Amino acid sequence: MSYPLALQKLISFLRKFPGVGKKTAERFAFQIIYWKDLDLTAFAELLKSIKKDLITCSTCKALYDKARCPFCDLDIRDSNLLCVVASPKDIFTLEATGIYNGLYHAIPGLLSPVDHFGPSDLHFNELKERLSRHETKEVILALDSTIEGDATALFLKKELEPAGIRVSRLAMGMPLGSSLDFLDEGTLTRAFSSRLPV
Amino acid sequence: MSYPLALQKLISFLRKFPGVGKKTAERFAFQIIYWKDLDLTAFAELLKSIKKDLITCSTCKALYDKARCPFCDLDIRDSNLLCVVASPKDIFTLEATGIYNGLYHAIPGLLSPVDHFGPSDLHFNELKERLSRHETKEVILALDSTIEGDATALFLKKELEPAGIRVSRLAMGMPLGSSLDFLDEGTLTRAFSSRLPV
Repeated sequence: MSYPLALQKLISFLRKFPGVGKKTAERFAFQIIYWKDLDLTAFAELLKSIKKDLITCSTCKALYDKARCPFCDLDIRDSNLLCVVASPKDIFTLEATGIYNGLYHAIPGLLSPVDHFGPSDLHFNELKERLSRHETKEVILALDSTIEGDATALFLKKELEPAGIRVSRLAMGMPLGSSLDFLDEGTLTRAFSSRLPV
Repeated sequence: MSYPLALQKLISFLRKFPGVGKKTAERFAFQIIYWKDLDLTAFAELLKSIKKDLITCSTCKALYDKARCPFCDLDIRDSNLLCVVASPKDIFTLEATGIYNGLYHAIPGLLSPVDHFGPSDLHFNELKERLSRHETKEVILALDSTIEGDATALFLKKELEPAGIRVSRLAMGMPLGSSLDFLDEGTLTRAFSSRLPV
């Protein structure tokens, strides 16, 4: 005896979520069906309208619901700095730190030969156009510390530095609150070679 | 700059899912907003109708969408056996094994003084009424192997055995495919003391 059809459908939708397998989707589904009617309806209505409620900025690719993109507002942001991220989500993650007040630019992804994502997919011209428009002094690469992130950083550095733009990348080392014996060798090596005066 | 309002709302709904914290909900949300319109609408419609599409059996508490509960159909199920579970979901998990063809009874939860869930919350009378109706020979307790599961099993055994009903519980021991050095001491002790001839 398998799940009723509606429940099967619900489970298959929940399995679309990143990192959610059969068991987790089943747990989610069995919780959802006991939600209050009011919550279920509100959730459903939100899903139906979410795409209309969010605007993707044509310049930096961030999401916003205001009259114009708050991340591209030159009255409040420093146009000398441009931070390159690989996903619009990362813009919000960085904003949460409060350390940065420059502009953002989300590239469509990271270089990955396995996924057939090459240099032309980076839409480099869009980035170049912005740099010349704002007369950017420094480009900060806030990319994953993975092979794909490294390759993309190297590519962008090679393309940008001849134009006289300073290119930097987020520091790599020990995460805050970590203990030495739980760090992998790669991180430890990087933290060692990038050591700083106390 | 925080998330647009619609995105904040979506994230707070997704955080309701069991085991989903802020980070995971954000990852889910940023995937959902890039779903195809067709999928989003279908998901939303399903959520709105799911409660109407599913019937909770008043007898065993399983969910079904047929004319009557397939788990309570005495033409195809063995009424000598009654399997007690702590959640309707567990009925489907057990059914997937194909080993059991008796009746089911979902109690509302497991005894837990911390959660103020006492014997009266088990709705024991409903269970007793079913046992006398079907003249049940054996009650199989398919409960979690936790302190709450142990307490509930003990309580039910004490209540049922004086009535001459055989009460059994799922075996505890090594999970299939497990290696000795990854087992916790409790499991290993249990597997040792319940050892069987080869």
